[in-house]
Amino acid sequence: MRMHIPIQLRWGDLDAYNHVNNVEVMRLLEEARVRAFWKPVTGEAAPTAVLNAEAGSDTITLIAGHIVEYVAPIEYHRESVDVQLWISAVGGASADVSYEVYSQGRLTVRAESTMVFIDSATSRPRRIADHERAAWEPYFEAPIAFKRDQRMLRNGP
Amino acid sequence: MRMHIPIQLRWGDLDAYNHVNNVEVMRLLEEARVRAFWKPVTGEAAPTAVLNAEAGSDTITLIAGHIVEYVAPIEYHRESVDVQLWISAVGGASADVSYEVYSQGRLTVRAESTMVFIDSATSRPRRIADHERAAWEPYFEAPIAFKRDQRMLRNGP
Amino acid sequence: MRMHIPIQLRWGDLDAYNHVNNVEVMRLLEEARVRAFWKPVTGEAAPTAVLNAEAGSDTITLIAGHIVEYVAPIEYHRESVDVQLWISAVGGASADVSYEVYSQGRLTVRAESTMVFIDSATSRPRRIADHERAAWEPYFEAPIAFKRDQRMLRNGP
Amino acid sequence: MRMHIPIQLRWGDLDAYNHVNNVEVMRLLEEARVRAFWKPVTGEAAPTAVLNAEAGSDTITLIAGHIVEYVAPIEYHRESVDVQLWISAVGGASADVSYEVYSQGRLTVRAESTMVFIDSATSRPRRIADHERAAWEPYFEAPIAFKRDQRMLRNGP
Repeated sequence: MRMHIPIQLRWGDLDAYNHVNNVEVMRLLEEARVRAFWKPVTGEAAPTAVLNAEAGSDTITLIAGHIVEYVAPIEYHRESVDVQLWISAVGGASADVSYEVYSQGRLTVRAESTMVFIDSATSRPRRIADHERAAWEPYFEAPIAFKRDQRMLRNGP
Repeated sequence: MRMHIPIQLRWGDLDAYNHVNNVEVMRLLEEARVRAFWKPVTGEAAPTAVLNAEAGSDTITLIAGHIVEYVAPIEYHRESVDVQLWISAVGGASADVSYEVYSQGRLTVRAESTMVFIDSATSRPRRIADHERAAWEPYFEAPIAFKRDQRMLRNGP
Repeated sequence: MRMHIPIQLRWGDLDAYNHVNNVEVMRLLEEARVRAFWKPVTGEAAPTAVLNAEAGSDTITLIAGHIVEYVAPIEYHRESVDVQLWISAVGGASADVSYEVYSQGRLTVRAESTMVFIDSATSRPRRIADHERAAWEPYFEAPIAFKRDQRMLRNGP
Repeated sequence: MRMHIPIQLRWGDLDAYNHVNNVEVMRLLEEARVRAFWKPVTGEAAPTAVLNAEAGSDTITLIAGHIVEYVAPIEYHRESVDVQLWISAVGGASADVSYEVYSQGRLTVRAESTMVFIDSATSRPRRIADHERAAWEPYFEAPIAFKRDQRMLRNGP
C-alpha cells in the first residue's frame, strides 16, 4: 500500500525555465518523507509516523543516497502534488523509500532514497525497532524500477 | 478585511538554529502573495486573484521592497501557517501589501511589501485597472505598524 | 569604512522571471553577514569576525528585522556580487547592519538588518562585549537612506 | 581529466542537523554543472563551457536523472568546496556527468547526472555538435562507481 502525501508547491520552486527545478523536486520528496516518518506535533492521524524527530530526539535520520528520474516537468499550480511513497527495503538500521510524484494526475518523477537511522547519543546507526517495523509493514512494496536498472541489466555482468 | 492564506511549512525551511530561517519566512510571504494576486490555474474560488501570471502573461509583478519584523520564531510542524494579508496602499502602478503570519495561533511575523506591476511588452510600469482595484477593494486596510516607525516618529524631524 | 564581501551567485537563485529572486537576495545578505561577523574556521584574515558561531557556541545571532529596497534586477553571472556592509547602529545587545549590493559594478540593492545577540545558555539577549565593539568600530557608518524614509518624513508627524 | 569547480557554501545550506542539507548538495552540483557547461558572460577561461545558455538561447539543458551517494557530512565553512566533475558518457543528445565533492580535502559526495540537450525552438532533443564534443573530450573519464552498482551486480540477473 502506498502513502499519499499532498505537498504544496511554491512559486519559488520554479527556476528560470519556468518549471519546478530538479533540485526543488528533491525538497518535495524530503517533505513527504518527513511527514511520513516523523511523529506529528499536532494530533492528526499518521500511522507510519513513529520516529521521534523533535529537537533533542533520540534518532537522527540521515540520507545515504538518492536515485531520481524526471519523467515530465512540474508546472506551478495551487493544487498540491501527490507524493506517493512506500517502503521498498528494510535493513537492520536503514530503509529504502520509493516514490512517484503525480502533478495534476500525471506521473512526473520516480525516485528512491536510502535512509539511515542514527542514535543521537552515540552517533552510530541504531537498529529499527519492532514497533517501527510493524507500523511500516502495511506500506512495504517492491522497489520502483528505473530505466537505469534496465540499462544495467542489458549491459550487465 | 484580511485574506487568510494557509501555507505549508517544509522541514527544509529550518536552519541550523532549528527555526524557520528568516529568509525562508520571506518565501512564505511570496507564496501567500502569489496565491492572493494571481489567477488560479485550477477552478477554486480566489476573488482577489485577478492578475494573469501565466508564462507569456501581459503583467510581470516586481517587488520594490520589503519591511519585515520577526516577532517570534516559527517551529516546524505539519499544520500550515496562516498568512494574513491585506492591501495597505494602492498607487498608480504599485500596491503595498501588509502581512501578519500566525503559527499555531501565535503572531510570529509582521511585514509589508511593495509590488510594482510591469507591462511585459514594454517592460514599464502599467496602471492598475479598474477591475483589479475593484476586486481588491474589500481587502483594503490600514498599513501594519512597525516598531521601527515608532522609533522614527520618536526621533523624527 | 565598508566591508566588501564577495558572494557567489547560483543559477538556482533565479526565478521564473530569469532574475535573482528577491527572496534569494536576502540569502546573499545573510551569507555576507555570517562571513562578516562570525569567526572563520579556517585561518584567513577577518578582522570583524569576532562572534563565535560554531555549534555549541555561547552566542546565537537572531534577526529582529530587515528593510530592503530592490534598485535593479541581478542577472546570473559567474562573477561574485560585491556585498558592501557596515555597522550603522549599536545598542546594548543589538546592532544594525546596512548593505549595498553591487552586481557587475551596478548598485542593485539597499538593505538594513537588525541583529540581536542571544546568550545560548540563558536564551536571553546578552550585552555586546568591549572587544566586539572595538573590532567593529572601524566599520561604523551612517545608516543607509531608504526612499521609504523620505516618504515618511514628507508625510510625517 | 577532471574539472575542478570551486563552489562557495552558504550558511543557509545547513539544515536543523547543522550539516549542509542533502538537497542543497544537489544545488552545489547544479552550480558546478552550469559553470562547467555554459558560456561565461564575463571573459574568464572556461574551455568546456560551450553551451549558450543566455535567456533566448537555442539550447535548454534538462536533467533526466541523478544518482547521489552521501559519503560524509559537509560542515559550513568559508572555504569553497571543490566539485570535481567529468563527462562519463556521451550519447546523441545527452551526456552523463560524474562528480566527487571534496570539502576541506575530504570526499563527501559521489554523484552522476544525466543531461539532455533540448532545442529551444522545437522543444525536442538536439544532437551534440562536433565542436561541443571536441571541447568536452579532454574531460572524458570512466563513470563513477556507486555502492548500489556493486549491490546490483552481486544480486544481479
